[in-house]
This record gives sequence, C-alpha cells and structure tokens, in this order.
Amino acid sequence: MSEECIFCKIAKDEVNAEKIYENKEFFSVPDAAPQIEGHSLVISKKHFKDASELPKELGEDLLDCIQKTAKKLLDRFGADGFNIINNASKAAGQIVDHVHFHILPRKEGDGYFISLKKKE
Amino acid sequence: MSEECIFCKIAKDEVNAEKIYENKEFFSVPDAAPQIEGHSLVISKKHFKDASELPKELGEDLLDCIQKTAKKLLDRFGADGFNIINNASKAAGQIVDHVHFHILPRKEGDGYFISLKKKE
Repeated sequence: MSEECIFCKIAKDEVNAEKIYENKEFFSVPDAAPQIEGHSLVISKKHFKDASELPKELGEDLLDCIQKTAKKLLDRFGADGFNIINNASKAAGQIVDHVHFHILPRKEGDGYFISLKKKE
Repeated sequence: MSEECIFCKIAKDEVNAEKIYENKEFFSVPDAAPQIEGHSLVISKKHFKDASELPKELGEDLLDCIQKTAKKLLDRFGADGFNIINNASKAAGQIVDHVHFHILPRKEGDGYFISLKKKE
C-alpha cells in the first residue's frame, strides 16, 4: 500500500466517494472521469498492483462486487447490459497502480462500441 | 445449455480447440478471430448466458483461469501486461450467448489502445 494511492485513500474513507456497493474485499464507486453514463470502478480494499496479483481466493468477492454493482447501475440508469474492462499493467493502459475493474452500463442501441485500435 | 452453443461444444471436446489452461469450472482457448496477437477467451465449462448469471462461488476458479491464462500468454508472446474484457448482453456487444472473458496480451509501446466510441 502506498500512502499516496488514491484508491487506498477512498478505501479508508480519507477521500470522499459514493460507495455504490461493498463487501469484505471490494467496493465500487463512480469513475471520476466517466466515459459513459454510470461508468464505475470495482476496487479492492487492500492494495494490489494489478489483476495478476490478486489472490485467487478473492475471486468470489470480486465477482459478487462486479455483479451487485452492475445490477445497481442497470437499475439506476435504465441500462440493458454492461462491459467489464480491466487493464493489467502500464503496457495495457493501467493508470492507477491499484487493481480496479471498469463497469460500463450499456443500453440497447446506444451506438457505442469497444474497440482495440492502433494510435494514429 | 444449447446444443448449438459453440462454447459448449468446445467444453465437451466436440469441437477441437487448443486448451491453453483449464480448471474445474473454466478453460481458455485462442480466439478464432484474434484482434491482437495472443487474443484468447476464458470460458465457463457450464453454460451461463452472461457474467451477471455466473454463480459467485465460481469467482475463485474464474480468477484462477484468467490469471494462469494471462501468465501463459505473456510468456508465450513476450507481452508485458494484458486487458480483460467482458461484454454482458447483446446491448454491450456480446455475440456468443455463453459467458466468456477476452484476454488481450499487451506489449510496452505496442501502440494499441482500448476505446469506447460512438459508431459514426
């Protein structure tokens, strides 16, 4: 854990953020720079660098937090589905070095699509 | 389970595919239409429609299969990290109605980025 880590600070309530859902090992909050309405993050309470470092025993709480968060977002924003995105390592686009999963609520015909593109 | 489901057929070895890794509840195979070198899929052995329907008790095996698959892909392709992407429901871009997680190996400076964009 780094004392500078923003997600550790949110986990310890040293930085204020709406907790959408939480269980023993994870919590979820709205993304501070949403790419789509309802864009939220599922974050581990303990500090792990990325998804490769999460103890597999935390998998059940991870899946629970993702599912319960998605259900709340779907209800709140009238969405029909969701994407889960995780970037593991800087090479994969990870910016905050504390494992987190993006949850993107999606609506039928919203016109969005996820793509893997080469920078021009 | 649908008798027509391609992922159920791969799970039962009725359709041939290289199994990268498998545990009790999940297995991984190369994506048939890779978007990047090493693009692979982590798939449940039992038929569940999407990520919202996976029993949370399967979370540990899911995380194990994602991590072990990613480790093998990083070694095999000399990658530095990976992305995990799941599309839950047709609204979110899900094509095969059997839960699967995309694993995309990524290299430092590969020039790719994941974007959520509006169709033009």
